[in-house]
Amino acid sequence: MTRLYDPRHTAVLLIDPYNDFISEGGKLWPRLAPVATEVGLVDNLRTVTAAARGIGARLLIVPHRRWEPGDYESWRHPNPTQRGIMERHSFARGTWGGEFHPDLAPQPGDIVVHEHWAQSGFANTDLDFQLKQHGITHVVLIGVLANTCLESTGRFAMELGYHVTLVRDATAAFSPEMMYAAHELNGPTFAHAIRTTEELVEAFGLTAA
Amino acid sequence: MTRLYDPRHTAVLLIDPYNDFISEGGKLWPRLAPVATEVGLVDNLRTVTAAARGIGARLLIVPHRRWEPGDYESWRHPNPTQRGIMERHSFARGTWGGEFHPDLAPQPGDIVVHEHWAQSGFANTDLDFQLKQHGITHVVLIGVLANTCLESTGRFAMELGYHVTLVRDATAAFSPEMMYAAHELNGPTFAHAIRTTEELVEAFGLTAA
Amino acid sequence: MTRLYDPRHTAVLLIDPYNDFISEGGKLWPRLAPVATEVGLVDNLRTVTAAARGIGARLLIVPHRRWEPGDYESWRHPNPTQRGIMERHSFARGTWGGEFHPDLAPQPGDIVVHEHWAQSGFANTDLDFQLKQHGITHVVLIGVLANTCLESTGRFAMELGYHVTLVRDATAAFSPEMMYAAHELNGPTFAHAIRTTEELVEAFGLTAA
Amino acid sequence: MTRLYDPRHTAVLLIDPYNDFISEGGKLWPRLAPVATEVGLVDNLRTVTAAARGIGARLLIVPHRRWEPGDYESWRHPNPTQRGIMERHSFARGTWGGEFHPDLAPQPGDIVVHEHWAQSGFANTDLDFQLKQHGITHVVLIGVLANTCLESTGRFAMELGYHVTLVRDATAAFSPEMMYAAHELNGPTFAHAIRTTEELVEAFGLTAA
Repeated sequence: MTRLYDPRHTAVLLIDPYNDFISEGGKLWPRLAPVATEVGLVDNLRTVTAAARGIGARLLIVPHRRWEPGDYESWRHPNPTQRGIMERHSFARGTWGGEFHPDLAPQPGDIVVHEHWAQSGFANTDLDFQLKQHGITHVVLIGVLANTCLESTGRFAMELGYHVTLVRDATAAFSPEMMYAAHELNGPTFAHAIRTTEELVEAFGLTAA
Repeated sequence: MTRLYDPRHTAVLLIDPYNDFISEGGKLWPRLAPVATEVGLVDNLRTVTAAARGIGARLLIVPHRRWEPGDYESWRHPNPTQRGIMERHSFARGTWGGEFHPDLAPQPGDIVVHEHWAQSGFANTDLDFQLKQHGITHVVLIGVLANTCLESTGRFAMELGYHVTLVRDATAAFSPEMMYAAHELNGPTFAHAIRTTEELVEAFGLTAA
Repeated sequence: MTRLYDPRHTAVLLIDPYNDFISEGGKLWPRLAPVATEVGLVDNLRTVTAAARGIGARLLIVPHRRWEPGDYESWRHPNPTQRGIMERHSFARGTWGGEFHPDLAPQPGDIVVHEHWAQSGFANTDLDFQLKQHGITHVVLIGVLANTCLESTGRFAMELGYHVTLVRDATAAFSPEMMYAAHELNGPTFAHAIRTTEELVEAFGLTAA
Repeated sequence: MTRLYDPRHTAVLLIDPYNDFISEGGKLWPRLAPVATEVGLVDNLRTVTAAARGIGARLLIVPHRRWEPGDYESWRHPNPTQRGIMERHSFARGTWGGEFHPDLAPQPGDIVVHEHWAQSGFANTDLDFQLKQHGITHVVLIGVLANTCLESTGRFAMELGYHVTLVRDATAAFSPEMMYAAHELNGPTFAHAIRTTEELVEAFGLTAA
């Protein structure tokens, strides 16, 4: 096993692991379930986070803004996704849907960064700063959605000078063609590596289960 | 004709209008030609820039880094696109390929922002600053490529608080499915409007030719 | 009275109005009291916020990170100010010192942005984004400290393209020479206007009390 | 000699070493000369850059915008410094004043980042990105002016997560009190180290001349 990632300089970014997205009964789960089930999303999120902790790599939780009453209403131009959240109250603060999936909640040593208002975990948050203060140069992106929050976070990470790894089956989207766009069309233009969960675990120098 | 864009607060961002991309004989033209020809790219770029000037909206040229010897060689992690540029010397400074298409070169009053190193015209440049200093709140993105530089510039613009308009046929990509990803899968999640050139001209309050 | 600020495009940024800073009994109050008492800090903060509300200008609260156990401990290089906070537990979350001064707490319509980790209210927060989404082009900075958080917020605001106003007596510092540095030496190099509270109220088109 | 800086992760940022600032005959030299002569500015700049090269630390040139006709004229709110440049045409492109001091010009391996429009070398430029792509975590700031461009670059560097070193006598300002403000009042609140040139050379693990 060759370790391709230095744990001192590698972080896993776990994006939006809310019940509303990835747990049965969540508001957006019905739209996500087909792809999430197909790839084994939650199992793979468990595997990657355990592997990160196993080698001593930092885990950062990168959470979307939890909806609160009044959100977006005074804005000049909320985008279509934000208009959807205004209607559905996705990830509402104080509700079960706005809590992290129980297997993916922060543990001691993890860092929870500022909530992001849109897609990129770097935009309008302290993510870049936290990564620098912890010596991180390589980021591995997992969570949801592949073509929105993960892709924007990955595009921003690359522009900020980080090495970016996508994980094909530790994410999901609302359709298979969105997954295809994220990993076959767009990812290869900006990401430095695109791996399966199994390949990532091996690249971490661990034996896949 | 109702004008949907206030010229005092609207800018057209013309991204990477290099000969190497959009002119016959350019290094990347063979890969772009099928889609570019199909949508009528250069004609539509002429139409949108003329319309912007016609209503007094600001035009900003948003150029990719022109390749120079040594570029990217000392970097920790150039991405796949940058590795391609290192091989091909795309948009090399001082060559015809690194010049703007003659019909799309800056005119007096246009602003040419700092060259970007990767995809987003906002990343590591003065684009956001120039827009603020000129009172711009709405950006209209044209040029190439639809799923890389335009999409990243649009994703960044939205995260920075701008109203974002994509123009379906004033851009192009290396394949029809990349265009589909940009305008049918991803664009609708972050952009505030997606129009054809004809629709944009009408939204500018002009009669389409 | 001529109104020099358009309320639709002007915001007052109220920076770090914590009891620990500006209320008698606060941890840092003893160091701040001489200058704060001299200029009439809290009275002037009340006057400026009332004036902003009076003309319908937006008020944003720009709060420093409230100290929590573990803060800064895993960082590569906390700065001297942050080392001081680690010792003193300034603005500790859940304590009186980490609450806003009662006369300066957010009211309906105010916006509370992400907590900043150091000095600039723009760094690693959603302040720039919130300003854009609310159409703000002019910012008026009040609160504390004149030469640290206010000055950094002002320097960043200018670099981001905003018009910046400092208010000489609606801020304070740990020494008169720090006030002098902020308003006589450095402010004039980056800020667009430096006014007294009375002058600001008049510039808002109101009659000073 | 203990080396306190790892050359692989340290960069010297040489800010605005224009003839107009630091060479006899430059437009701003008369205002800078008293302090610059007192501290031995140019000699110390030579010493620090030679020391950086001696240990293999990266040198980045961080240049102000060279004035061009039309600059700032269409802006909503140029600041007082920019208004001064409009009158004086400081660092005019194509003139001797807009060239680097001959002893401080870039050498092979140095990086020249995008020109900055105001004070911070990080604002609206590729400086942060270039530092990340070269593995830099520690920045040492030299050049001019101590309380404007250097201080803003230092404040931004700290907010971006870098370790920041100021060098007391490898910079200058328009008055001794501005130097005092930069190094005794403000620097200690954000910078991680403030050294003399001699102390820096020793901290680089070299014997001072």
